[in-house]
Amino acid sequence: MRERPAGRLDLRHFERRDEPLRELHPDELLVENVLLSVAPAARAVMDTDTYRPRLVVGETIPSTVIGRVLRTPSGGPAVGSLVAAFGAWEEYSILGSAQVRRLTIPAPLEHYLSVLGQNGLTAYFGLTRIGQVAPGETVVVSGAAGGVGHLAGQIARLLGARVVAITGSAEKNTVLTTQLGYDAAVNRRSATFVQDLSETVPEGIDVYFDNVAGPVTEAILPLMNRHGRIVCSGATSAYDGGAREAPGPAGLALAVITRSLRFEGFLVADFRDEWSAATTVLRDWSSSGRLVPKESVTTGLDSAPAALIDLLDGRNVGQAGVRLRPDPPHAFE
Amino acid sequence: MRERPAGRLDLRHFERRDEPLRELHPDELLVENVLLSVAPAARAVMDTDTYRPRLVVGETIPSTVIGRVLRTPSGGPAVGSLVAAFGAWEEYSILGSAQVRRLTIPAPLEHYLSVLGQNGLTAYFGLTRIGQVAPGETVVVSGAAGGVGHLAGQIARLLGARVVAITGSAEKNTVLTTQLGYDAAVNRRSATFVQDLSETVPEGIDVYFDNVAGPVTEAILPLMNRHGRIVCSGATSAYDGGAREAPGPAGLALAVITRSLRFEGFLVADFRDEWSAATTVLRDWSSSGRLVPKESVTTGLDSAPAALIDLLDGRNVGQAGVRLRPDPPHAFE
Repeated sequence: MRERPAGRLDLRHFERRDEPLRELHPDELLVENVLLSVAPAARAVMDTDTYRPRLVVGETIPSTVIGRVLRTPSGGPAVGSLVAAFGAWEEYSILGSAQVRRLTIPAPLEHYLSVLGQNGLTAYFGLTRIGQVAPGETVVVSGAAGGVGHLAGQIARLLGARVVAITGSAEKNTVLTTQLGYDAAVNRRSATFVQDLSETVPEGIDVYFDNVAGPVTEAILPLMNRHGRIVCSGATSAYDGGAREAPGPAGLALAVITRSLRFEGFLVADFRDEWSAATTVLRDWSSSGRLVPKESVTTGLDSAPAALIDLLDGRNVGQAGVRLRPDPPHAFE
Repeated sequence: MRERPAGRLDLRHFERRDEPLRELHPDELLVENVLLSVAPAARAVMDTDTYRPRLVVGETIPSTVIGRVLRTPSGGPAVGSLVAAFGAWEEYSILGSAQVRRLTIPAPLEHYLSVLGQNGLTAYFGLTRIGQVAPGETVVVSGAAGGVGHLAGQIARLLGARVVAITGSAEKNTVLTTQLGYDAAVNRRSATFVQDLSETVPEGIDVYFDNVAGPVTEAILPLMNRHGRIVCSGATSAYDGGAREAPGPAGLALAVITRSLRFEGFLVADFRDEWSAATTVLRDWSSSGRLVPKESVTTGLDSAPAALIDLLDGRNVGQAGVRLRPDPPHAFE
């Protein structure tokens, strides 16, 4: 980060910098990165304290990294094996050995940024543990074409729900309803959004899986059924444009009280003990074609800033990522 | 209700009207009311759809009533016995037999408006079932001198928590800390409120029991601990003054996501199966003096509007009510 963004993100906020590798501590790994994630949270941390303090100028943009182990401490993953970790937009990452997740299930590496990674787990735990989706319920997903959203809608259907997408474009909605099994989709930029939404949920909303926060929640609230659940997964509307002080949804307290609603946030780390079991489920769904991850991957470290800007402008369906080099041989331990 | 209030409540919004008793349906009771509740929700229903559609002009203000059965269907409570029900500000109520709760535990009748009534159950279920208060946790209660709040603080202490009150006056805070066992109290009208609050919760807030909603929640959010719970019990700040469209708390989504917070509403009716067990606990606590209900009871139906206005102006500690006649003899079945 060359400059802290105050509003919309721009290429001038980034610079590529070369630095010599520092010495490794005894418990650290050196990893050659193959793939990096590009996600809305990267924008948030550029000027907002989130699950970590905001970046200072000169720090590297944090991201998931998928890479190959070059050096390893004793007891660490084998040299040459593949790991995923929370690293940054960099060619090589130095990682604490406790931080890395070994990749043992053979799958396209891109899937470890999406369905088999943080986003798949976010969608899965958000729907099953926070949303507690039951068969026959109506689930609405906002940011439905995003890295988490496009998986959440499909998973909600696999759980037996009827699923409605909210995105910012008719083109994305067409992809979601024709290719990814959403039952209906609404464009939040349409002048008739509130009415459109209401018409697509004739039986009300049981679970709202929220990736965007902001004004969309106000349109959702009057449609929530008693004992409805709002799963707070992301707040992309607040990430770009200095909107972190944006007011919360009007009428929230009264709606929550009178209809016994639950509005709940979570981090994937809250369910660490269940990651392995959940990943097995997600792998079964994706390898059998019932859960289709979409990825939009650009090439080269220099492509990452523009990929993030495109993402925030709402131009992608699915998970955005950057590929730094081809898949290494002997990938899975 | 003579006139729908658009802002602050005034005596002109009310009138007393005499109407002949209508015929009873076969499953209805006729009850001579002894006590009526005066509660912030009465203001809310005058211009807002809540758990019921808002009142139309000419309707009677809804309230809890405690009364003596004058006529009863076969299988109903005995003539002369005492019941509680959701009725209205009226001398006599006609009630469906399924609606009434028989009062069988001998106690001062005022307690059935507070600790043994709706408010005691609201505080109890809010803390135990929604807030899931654990010993050693820090609980903050807003509207802490109100009908629900003054019980919630005491119950939270009985559950082993450290309890901090928020009210709108230093006088009320003195009552709460010297008579009702609150560990500390903060005045939300003080210029140093945010700092005062922060200093009273050095270990952060685990449970916020919210009776007021609005700006206080914004001061609370940065102090909430990971996995904190916000119990949405009331929204008095939105009841008077046409503020039902007031924006929700700024920064809510980001706080909820990054600290895995839960923001949850409930109705006492959600826990109907547990009313009896909970009432036994509340009776034990109150009869042994560990839980001290405070009541502020005026006399005569005509005193009800002014009592509600006083309540909304924040002049009471404890439960407000109106007594229509002395306790009847042979009160408990």
